[in-house]
Amino acid sequence: MPGKLPPDGSAAINQGSLRFTQTTEDAVPAEAVQDHYPDGFAHCFGCGRLNEHGHQLKTFREGDEAVARFQPGPHHIALPGFVYGGLIASLIDCHGIGAAADAELRAAGHDVGQVPTPRYVTASLHVNYLKPTPLGVELELRARVRERTARKAVVEVALSAAGVVTARGEVVAVAMPVAMGSPAT
Amino acid sequence: MPGKLPPDGSAAINQGSLRFTQTTEDAVPAEAVQDHYPDGFAHCFGCGRLNEHGHQLKTFREGDEAVARFQPGPHHIALPGFVYGGLIASLIDCHGIGAAADAELRAAGHDVGQVPTPRYVTASLHVNYLKPTPLGVELELRARVRERTARKAVVEVALSAAGVVTARGEVVAVAMPVAMGSPAT
Repeated sequence: MPGKLPPDGSAAINQGSLRFTQTTEDAVPAEAVQDHYPDGFAHCFGCGRLNEHGHQLKTFREGDEAVARFQPGPHHIALPGFVYGGLIASLIDCHGIGAAADAELRAAGHDVGQVPTPRYVTASLHVNYLKPTPLGVELELRARVRERTARKAVVEVALSAAGVVTARGEVVAVAMPVAMGSPAT
Repeated sequence: MPGKLPPDGSAAINQGSLRFTQTTEDAVPAEAVQDHYPDGFAHCFGCGRLNEHGHQLKTFREGDEAVARFQPGPHHIALPGFVYGGLIASLIDCHGIGAAADAELRAAGHDVGQVPTPRYVTASLHVNYLKPTPLGVELELRARVRERTARKAVVEVALSAAGVVTARGEVVAVAMPVAMGSPAT
């Protein structure tokens, strides 16, 4: 999908599903992992590009990490001033799954978007809420794959608000079982 | 809040926040734990009665368990036919917190609604997704408090769809810190 560079070519901005991460004139838009799920598997409430009611979280490859950013709405409240923990769990879940998929792409030597993104599902999710997450600022999620086999990945995710890590999660991701609709590839 | 009995006084039905659990003529509506949070703490996206955009999950005392039921919408999809894991995590989280609050009420000898529900927050959340959760049926959550001190509870939650347990969770709940707005009571 084409996107326009910012006027000075310098800023990292979100524009639909594209994000520019370079500062030189040859900057190319980064591709979101979730934008390359096959259409039939792109309706997840958390990260499906085809779910108009959902969060449409986007995971980008950045160095050896996977990064996503999300701006909660005022209704994503837990207690006054703080983000709802269920949203935090949801974002960590979908970002962890995206990072696991990206790890498979990397292992095969693929850039994001070069082939359809493989679909993983969550076997387990663990979230430690370290401190209250303030509502009103963009959240950043950074993921690293700690362990990986051909069918499974263990992903660590740190969620931060205004530069402060407020929650840490671990996602055990497994390749989507055929019984859930996985193409037998 | 008043509620009408079903015509034959026999069915367990949901009616707003009230649920009738007895079959005799003296049936009384069960009160939801979350309906008695103080107004200032009743906006949680998952279970706040004052959040019109949220799930408004309701936790009821039932024997020595806490029970909640929730009907996902068609947009709460993960992959075609299955419930989004982030929603499952969110429901387990809020129901676990409700069960922890109810355990404090029980320990003090209170029925639900007799005094304001104490407010807990989540220290950690762990969810094991045992099998895919089918979309289209009502989900049931059953919680038991495994450990409890004056300020903390460890709650086990089983989520089932059509009678089959598809996810199990553990919520570590702590009494809301004063820094988050807790009334200094």
